[in-house]
Amino acid sequence: MPLGERQGDEKNDAKYCGVETDFSDDMPQLLSLNIHGGFDFVVAPLMDPAYRPSLLESSNGGSGVLPFAGSDLVLSPSQWSSHVVGKISSWLDLDSEDEMLRRDSEIALKQEIAWASHLSLQACLLPAPKGVTCANYARCVNQILQNLSNMQLWLRIPLEKSDDDDGNRSPNSMGEEHRDSWEMWNSFRTLGEHHSQLSVALDVLCSLPSANSLARWFGEPVRAAIMNSNTFLTNARGFPCLSKRHQNLLTGFFNHSIQIVISGQQMQNLPTETSGSNHNSNNPSEGVDGMQRHPLRSYLDYIAYLYQRMDPLPEQERFELGYRDYLQSPLQPLMDNLEAQTYETFEKDTIKYIQYQRAVAKALVDRVPDENASTITTVLMVVGAGRGPLVRASLQAAEETGRKLRVYAVEKNPNAIVTLHSLLKIEGWEKIVTIVSSDMRCWDAPEKADILVSELLGSFGDNELSPECLDGAQRFLKEDGISIPSSYTSFFQPVTASKLYNDIKSHKDLVHFETAYVVKLHRIARLTSPQPVFTFNHPEHSTTKSNHRYKQLRFEIPTDTGSALVHGFAGYFDAVLYKDVHLGIEPSTATPNMFSWFPIFFPLRTPIIAQPGVPLEVHIWRCCGTSKVWYEWCVTSPSSSPIHNCNGRSYWVGL
Amino acid sequence: MPLGERQGDEKNDAKYCGVETDFSDDMPQLLSLNIHGGFDFVVAPLMDPAYRPSLLESSNGGSGVLPFAGSDLVLSPSQWSSHVVGKISSWLDLDSEDEMLRRDSEIALKQEIAWASHLSLQACLLPAPKGVTCANYARCVNQILQNLSNMQLWLRIPLEKSDDDDGNRSPNSMGEEHRDSWEMWNSFRTLGEHHSQLSVALDVLCSLPSANSLARWFGEPVRAAIMNSNTFLTNARGFPCLSKRHQNLLTGFFNHSIQIVISGQQMQNLPTETSGSNHNSNNPSEGVDGMQRHPLRSYLDYIAYLYQRMDPLPEQERFELGYRDYLQSPLQPLMDNLEAQTYETFEKDTIKYIQYQRAVAKALVDRVPDENASTITTVLMVVGAGRGPLVRASLQAAEETGRKLRVYAVEKNPNAIVTLHSLLKIEGWEKIVTIVSSDMRCWDAPEKADILVSELLGSFGDNELSPECLDGAQRFLKEDGISIPSSYTSFFQPVTASKLYNDIKSHKDLVHFETAYVVKLHRIARLTSPQPVFTFNHPEHSTTKSNHRYKQLRFEIPTDTGSALVHGFAGYFDAVLYKDVHLGIEPSTATPNMFSWFPIFFPLRTPIIAQPGVPLEVHIWRCCGTSKVWYEWCVTSPSSSPIHNCNGRSYWVGL
Repeated sequence: MPLGERQGDEKNDAKYCGVETDFSDDMPQLLSLNIHGGFDFVVAPLMDPAYRPSLLESSNGGSGVLPFAGSDLVLSPSQWSSHVVGKISSWLDLDSEDEMLRRDSEIALKQEIAWASHLSLQACLLPAPKGVTCANYARCVNQILQNLSNMQLWLRIPLEKSDDDDGNRSPNSMGEEHRDSWEMWNSFRTLGEHHSQLSVALDVLCSLPSANSLARWFGEPVRAAIMNSNTFLTNARGFPCLSKRHQNLLTGFFNHSIQIVISGQQMQNLPTETSGSNHNSNNPSEGVDGMQRHPLRSYLDYIAYLYQRMDPLPEQERFELGYRDYLQSPLQPLMDNLEAQTYETFEKDTIKYIQYQRAVAKALVDRVPDENASTITTVLMVVGAGRGPLVRASLQAAEETGRKLRVYAVEKNPNAIVTLHSLLKIEGWEKIVTIVSSDMRCWDAPEKADILVSELLGSFGDNELSPECLDGAQRFLKEDGISIPSSYTSFFQPVTASKLYNDIKSHKDLVHFETAYVVKLHRIARLTSPQPVFTFNHPEHSTTKSNHRYKQLRFEIPTDTGSALVHGFAGYFDAVLYKDVHLGIEPSTATPNMFSWFPIFFPLRTPIIAQPGVPLEVHIWRCCGTSKVWYEWCVTSPSSSPIHNCNGRSYWVGL
Repeated sequence: MPLGERQGDEKNDAKYCGVETDFSDDMPQLLSLNIHGGFDFVVAPLMDPAYRPSLLESSNGGSGVLPFAGSDLVLSPSQWSSHVVGKISSWLDLDSEDEMLRRDSEIALKQEIAWASHLSLQACLLPAPKGVTCANYARCVNQILQNLSNMQLWLRIPLEKSDDDDGNRSPNSMGEEHRDSWEMWNSFRTLGEHHSQLSVALDVLCSLPSANSLARWFGEPVRAAIMNSNTFLTNARGFPCLSKRHQNLLTGFFNHSIQIVISGQQMQNLPTETSGSNHNSNNPSEGVDGMQRHPLRSYLDYIAYLYQRMDPLPEQERFELGYRDYLQSPLQPLMDNLEAQTYETFEKDTIKYIQYQRAVAKALVDRVPDENASTITTVLMVVGAGRGPLVRASLQAAEETGRKLRVYAVEKNPNAIVTLHSLLKIEGWEKIVTIVSSDMRCWDAPEKADILVSELLGSFGDNELSPECLDGAQRFLKEDGISIPSSYTSFFQPVTASKLYNDIKSHKDLVHFETAYVVKLHRIARLTSPQPVFTFNHPEHSTTKSNHRYKQLRFEIPTDTGSALVHGFAGYFDAVLYKDVHLGIEPSTATPNMFSWFPIFFPLRTPIIAQPGVPLEVHIWRCCGTSKVWYEWCVTSPSSSPIHNCNGRSYWVGL
C-alpha cells in the first residue's frame, strides 16, 4: 500500500515502495508474501541464477525450455505489470575479458528482456556495469532498446564518488579504479544516445557523496533508489532509522518521483514487535491473514514515516505541478495579441502589482515634494496597459502618497482597449485616465511624461522586446523622467536536465534544439550559481547605444560536484522597478509568491560534460534585425559547440 | 602563369601562385603589375585600411559611399573572379574588449564580404583571429556564410604550435597564451558547424612545427599557404631559397592542391639580375613590355623551381586521381552479381594474381612431395571463381611446380559462368577444370578438396563476408586441407578527413554517417599507426567459434602532433595467402602496385578531438544476424560517442 497521501501527490510514483527479492520459482507466493507484507511491488529475478546459456546448450542439446521463474500464467497480466519489476541476472558481465562469459551474458540478457517484454512488465532492473568499461553492455542494451515496446530499463548504479576526485585529475585518469559512478552512467547513456527508456536505479550506500555530487542526479532520469538494509542505523529502541543526510536525500527522492526499493536482509537483533510500530504507522504489526510479519517491515515503516513527515506542498507549488518540466514556447506579445485568459492569469499575481505600486509611490514622492503635492500633477503613462492592472496600481500609489496624477493608458491590443474603457466607467476614472489605442513605438503623445510604467518583461528580461518598446516610448518621456522598471538584467545558469533534453530530442529536428522555452524547472540539477548576462537601463540617453548585446560567461563547477552533463542553461531575470524596489525570478533574490514567470531554458544541441577545474565558457548574443530580435549561443570550453540559432533561423521574436 | 606542368596536374590548383598586395585604389594597375610580374592572382585589400564605420558615420552623416578599391567597372567580371582574392581588412578584431572596435569590425566585415560577393570573387582572405577567443568572429562569419553564394572564405591561420605543448597540459590551460593555432582553427570551424565554404590559408613562418604537427593540416580544408619573403633563406649566390623542411612542406602543399601566395617585401641586398634567373626558369628576367621586374619575382621563380622539380606522378596515381577522396559504397558481392566491367578492372591487377600463384605453388609443393608429383592429383577448388583469374593462377602454379591438379571452379553468378565456359574452351582446360554453377554455401561437392582458393576479401578484410562464405565451403575441404587465404586481419586508424566529413554531412541524414565507404584517401591526416582489429583463420575447426567479433582499441596520438580532429577511421586489411605469401593494403606492409582495393572509411557522426596523453579508445563490433552482417562502432575516450549503426540500421552486408 502507498507510503502515505499528500495533497498534490496523487500522481507521484514515489509513494509506492518496492522490495528486492531473491529468485523464487513460486512467483505467486513470493508476490503474496511481499504485497501482504506492505510493499507495492517486488523487484524479482526472472531467471534461475544458476542458468548459463553455454551450459544449457551442451547439456540438453538445445531443447529450449529456459529456467524462468514460472510461466506467464502463474500471475494475472495485471499482477505481472503492476507488481513485478524484472530483475535481470546479476551474474551478467558483458564487458568481461572472458569471451565465453561475455557471450553467455549477452544471450541471457536478451532472453530475460524478451521474457519480461512477453509479460508486459513495466520495468526491468539491469545489473550495475562491472568493469571500468561498459561499451559492450551499452551496445547490447542499445540494440535491445531499439525494439522494446514500453518497458523501462533501470540501470543499477551505485551512488558513489571517490573523494580523491578533486577536479585536478587529468582526463587520462578516466577509467581508473576510483571511478565516479556518474561517469559510468554518463558513458552508458551517451553510447545509447540518451534513449528515453533507459533510466537509473541508484544503489544508496552507507556513506554518501557531497551534497553537490548528489544534486547532479536530480537532473538525471532516476526512477528508483535502492536502500539496502545495511544502510540503516539503529535507533535507541533498536529500530532502523537513517542518518540526517540520508533522510534529506530521501525527501529529495520523494519530491522527484523516485521510488524507494528496500533490499537486503533484516538487521540482526531487531526487536520483535508485539504492538504497533515504532513510528506513527497505522498499519497493524501483524500481517493480514495472520501471516508472518515481513522481515523488512520495520524498514518500510520507517520509509513511510519519512514520507508522511514531509511538509505539505504549498498551494502555489500544487497549482504549478502540471507545468513541471513542461516546455512552452515563449509568448510573442508584440506580434500576437494576448487573450483574455492570459490577462486573467497574470492579473492575479498580487505581489507583482504590490511591487509596482511601491515603486510608483516612491517615484511620485521623489518627483513631487510634500509641499507641492496638491498643486503639481504628475503625468504618468502606462505603456502596454493591457486590461489595466498597472493603471490601478499607479492610482493606488497616488492615493497612498497624496499625489495628483494624470494617466495615459497606451495599449496596442484593441481587445484589451474594450476592457479598459469599461474599467474606467466602473471605477469612475474617466477624468484622470486617458486611453490610447496605439502601439507605443509610433504613438504621437500630446505631452511628455514624468513617469513611464511598463510590464514588458519576459522570463529572460529583454526577451519580449521590452528594450525596443521602451526605446520607442522614450520619445515622450521627459528628459529627467523616470522609467519603471529602470533596469533589468538577465541571468544564465548551466543545468542538467535530461528530461527536457529528451523532450526536445523527440521532435527530431534542429529547430527545437535552437529554441528557448519557458518552463517550470523541476527535475533539473543547477550546477553553479547563475551569472548576469545582459542589462538594459531606461531611459537610455546614449545615442550610439544599440540593443545588440554580447556576453561571455565563465562558470566553474564546484570541486565536490564531480563531472556533470550540461543539457542547457536556465535563464532568469531581475528587474529594478525603482531604487530598492525590485522584481525577479533569479533564484537567490526571487520575489516570493510571484507566479507570472517561469524560468526560460536554452538547450544545447549536444550536451556538454562539465568538469571541476575546467571552466565552462559560454557566449550569448542578443542580435537585432530589421524585423526580429533573436539570441545566439554557444559553448567554447571545455570544447566548442556549434553556434546555436544562427541568424535566428530557429527562434526569434518579431518586432 | 602556372608554376609548371606535370602530367596529371591539369586540375591541380596548386600550380597557380598568388601574391599578397597592399591597398591600392588603382586596381587595374595593381593587377597588371602583378600578372605581368608572373603571378596568377593577387590577394588585395578591397577597402581603404583607414576606414572605420564609426568614424564615417559621424563625419559624413552616412552619405554612404564606402572607400572601396575602385568600382566594379574598373576590371572585367572575369578579371575580378579569376585574378583577385579579396583581402579583408587586417585591423578587424571581432573579439576585442573594446566594444566600439568590435562593432566597427563587424560592420566592416559584412560590408567587405558583401562587396566581394557583388564582384563574384572566388574567395576572400579573412584576417587571423587576434585574441585567445574567437567566438564573436566565428559567430559573425557563420552568419555571413548562411547567405553566401559560392565564395570561399579563407581564414588566415599562422602555422605555429608552441613547443611547451607536450601533451601533459591540463584542459584548463586551453585559451592560455601559447596556444596551438590549430586549436583556434578547430574552435572557429566547430562553432560554424564545419561549413564547407570556410577554409584555411596557412601563414608559413620561419620556424616550423614538427612533422606530425604539420601533417594534421593535410586533413583540413587548407586552400592556400602564404609564404612571407622573410621565411626564405639566401643561397650562396644571394638568391632566395628555402630550408629543406620548408621545401618538403611545399611539396606537400603542391600534392594537396594548396596554392602558394607570396607575401612581404623584397629581401635587402637581393642581387639585381641581368640575365636569366638563378633557377631553371625559362621566364625572361625583364617583364614583358619592358616593365620593371616584379620585386618578388625571384621568390616566385624559386617556388616554380620547386614545383617543376617534383617527381612525375606514377601511372597508378594518375589513374586513381579521379577517385581521390571520392566516397563509394562498398560492393554487396553476395547479394548482387558483379558486372563485366568490374571483373575486367579487377582481373587487371597482375600483382594480386602473382601472389596467389606463389601461394598455390607453395601449397602444392608442401602437399605433394617431388617424388609423388606425377602420381598424386591435388583437388583444388576455386570458390567464387568469377571469370577465372584464380583458375588460371592455380593452373600456372601447377605447371610451374610440376604438380597435377583437378580444379573445380565454383561460381554463383550465372553471367560469369558463361565466360568461364568459353575460357575453358579457348584454353583447352576442359579435362582439368569442372565448372560448378552454385553458391558455395550450398553446393554438394562430389569430393573433398585439398586446397580451397578464394578471393572474397573486401577493403576491411571480412566486410564482403568471406568468413561466412568460407565457413560454408569448409564442408568440402579435407580435414588437413589448405585454405588460400589462410587468414586475414583488418586494421583501424584514426584520421582527420574534413573533406570526407563534409561530403557525408551534405546528405543531412543519419544513414550516411553510419555507413562505411570505400575511398581512395588523399586529403587526410593519419594520426597514429593502424592497429589490428579482427582476424579470421581458415579453415576454422573450433565448433563454438562464431563470426561475431568485438575489439577494443586504444590509440595514442604522438606527443608532438598536438591535438587533432578525428573524423573517423581508415580501415585496411592484410591477408596471409599461404605461409609467407601475403596480400594487403595496410600502409606499412601494403603489396606494391596492387590496385584492387582502396581503403575503407568508417565515419564518426560528431568528430572527436584527440589529444596527446589522452588515449583514444575505440570499440568495434562485427555483428551477425540471420540475413545480414554489420559493424557497430563507437568511441569511449576522451569522451563517449553514440554507438554507430545500431542493429545495422544504416549499413549492412546481406548474407
